[in-house]
Amino acid sequence: MTAEFSFTLHKTDGSARRGTVHTLHGDIRTPAFMPVGTVGTVKGLYLDQVKGTGADIILGNTYHLMLRPGAEEVAALGGLHTFIGWEHPILTDSGGFQIMSLSKIRKITEQAALFQSHIDGRRYELSPERAMEIQRLLGSDIQMQLDQCIEFPHTEKDAEKAMQLSLRWAERSRIAFGRQPGRGNFGIVQGGTDARLRRLSAEGLRSIGFEGYAIGGLAVGEGQVLMLSTIELTEQYLPQDRPRYLMGVGTPEDILESVARGVDMFDCVMPTRSGRHGQAFTRFGKINLRNAKHANDPRPLDPEHPCPALSQYSRAYLHHLIRSGELLGMMLLSWANIAYYQSLMQGIRDAIETGRFADFRLATKEQWKRGDIAP
Amino acid sequence: MTAEFSFTLHKTDGSARRGTVHTLHGDIRTPAFMPVGTVGTVKGLYLDQVKGTGADIILGNTYHLMLRPGAEEVAALGGLHTFIGWEHPILTDSGGFQIMSLSKIRKITEQAALFQSHIDGRRYELSPERAMEIQRLLGSDIQMQLDQCIEFPHTEKDAEKAMQLSLRWAERSRIAFGRQPGRGNFGIVQGGTDARLRRLSAEGLRSIGFEGYAIGGLAVGEGQVLMLSTIELTEQYLPQDRPRYLMGVGTPEDILESVARGVDMFDCVMPTRSGRHGQAFTRFGKINLRNAKHANDPRPLDPEHPCPALSQYSRAYLHHLIRSGELLGMMLLSWANIAYYQSLMQGIRDAIETGRFADFRLATKEQWKRGDIAP
Repeated sequence: MTAEFSFTLHKTDGSARRGTVHTLHGDIRTPAFMPVGTVGTVKGLYLDQVKGTGADIILGNTYHLMLRPGAEEVAALGGLHTFIGWEHPILTDSGGFQIMSLSKIRKITEQAALFQSHIDGRRYELSPERAMEIQRLLGSDIQMQLDQCIEFPHTEKDAEKAMQLSLRWAERSRIAFGRQPGRGNFGIVQGGTDARLRRLSAEGLRSIGFEGYAIGGLAVGEGQVLMLSTIELTEQYLPQDRPRYLMGVGTPEDILESVARGVDMFDCVMPTRSGRHGQAFTRFGKINLRNAKHANDPRPLDPEHPCPALSQYSRAYLHHLIRSGELLGMMLLSWANIAYYQSLMQGIRDAIETGRFADFRLATKEQWKRGDIAP
Repeated sequence: MTAEFSFTLHKTDGSARRGTVHTLHGDIRTPAFMPVGTVGTVKGLYLDQVKGTGADIILGNTYHLMLRPGAEEVAALGGLHTFIGWEHPILTDSGGFQIMSLSKIRKITEQAALFQSHIDGRRYELSPERAMEIQRLLGSDIQMQLDQCIEFPHTEKDAEKAMQLSLRWAERSRIAFGRQPGRGNFGIVQGGTDARLRRLSAEGLRSIGFEGYAIGGLAVGEGQVLMLSTIELTEQYLPQDRPRYLMGVGTPEDILESVARGVDMFDCVMPTRSGRHGQAFTRFGKINLRNAKHANDPRPLDPEHPCPALSQYSRAYLHHLIRSGELLGMMLLSWANIAYYQSLMQGIRDAIETGRFADFRLATKEQWKRGDIAP
């Protein structure tokens, strides 16, 4: 247990960074991938499986948890860590993204975001202060400012308006966060894909001062090229001594390329969502287990991987389970994907530590490109 | 590993029996509950969890497995044990029940059952010989004869016709089973709820001679009273030295009452199916986790149960997961129910061994009746 939230940068290799985030509930080795525990569960996995894959931290969604079971309810049950049975770090987002993507009728005022629950239509008002209050009630170790997310494509004018509002909300979020020893508050850089806006946003946030900085508003349909160039033009305005979190990203390749551009933290529903639909991520690239070619294949997805879901179940059995719509198929492929993502992060961390990240990046992409093992 | 399939009756207590079935893949302590692994997975559980709850044997459905992935396909992959990763005993049914309950257009001739797959409409013919061939290809330790199941209610005439056909199919099944050291072939008593027909069926099967005898055609809507009386009038015609298997039963109370009437083996989808829908079976009776009264309850379902699903997750969290439709909710309650069923069987076995089954039966029913622990 650390009294103060802090970040140690151990080593850089090109722009790639190897660090540790210290929090009340333990350390996070970076670059880190945070499995998404949307409503308080990483879908289809037991939390000891999540930990067993090497995850140091999971994410919870403020939007989902405020609707059900409710922040005050979780607090009364001892906070999110106790409620779900995870004693390691938790990051909660602020709800901004889900308000844009999930909720019904919504209105953004200077004061707050107004929206209707996608579950029962109930009306909610989420201000920067309430977003921070909810995250404090949940007891998360990393608490995100409330921001306004906009859709892609957007006009520069809309991007600027949302960025400026997010910056004013950042200031109010920072004040509302107050002092919470061992816990950190991250600001979120917005500004679409515009260099000037991203710079203004990053500098604005730095002048407020946060324990970490997130890059928001990406992976919303702009494509990998534009995403990576936006990361490049944003990173340069972020401080070296704070963790950098790219929100909602992404594929293994997105992660590898973003690490190469200085990103420390990632989260994405992709490994679990794809797993539920029969798609595996492996060192041989993407493998679609629904494909009939796996029906008679007794080999596991990857015999050398330490995760049983990858090394101890035949492709034939996984194919059968997925085609039959069985829970165990979703469970195994979600587990396999989280395990692969974590082993990728471990590979990335090892490579940076030993100064061979460039080689690792090339070799990993080469192997993905060569594709799956021959039948 | 035993070369011969056999049954040892260790102790009786009233009509209740404590025994062991010896099979190629290991021993089955009876009375036994067999979790149902329909298409090659006990829905929502890892097989090491199933084993961990105390299950000695699981069941696979011939009907489901013949349609997908197919018996020859499973055989080519090393048989059902290897395919699913379960090295302990497996019982397979013959497909008769699912043909009645699941398949589309079906026709029963003297030769075989003709039906269309509920998955893709493909036509199949299942003869007694083919049913045995499929089970041999799957490699199951206990293989059931093909029988004709009829719906409830039925006329005596229909019940007699189906019973007589089942008896002729029993003879053909027995010949087709041949000699399979370490594996057993069970005949199935039919005859609806009619005493004369049940006697004729049981005596007919005994004169053919099987390693075990099942009571089929119950738990199809006749109610507990009629089910138990039918068991009573059937048991008396079954040999003492062979295991008795009541197919597709049932609730914890059904099982307790059937053990009291001399049944040794059970299978039912109830613990996993009910679990997926939010219902838990516990020593305090049935508990519906969807009920709002659990929303703020930090207590586990049963703090004294060794299964983590019962003792380490709060009712509030289970309620939240079930209400949110989360996989983990279905996983945990399926696990909890299989664990409760197995601990009930262990309690039953211990009670018979020590000659206090009558007390155990009363005390268990008393505790169910007292209901859940107070809020």
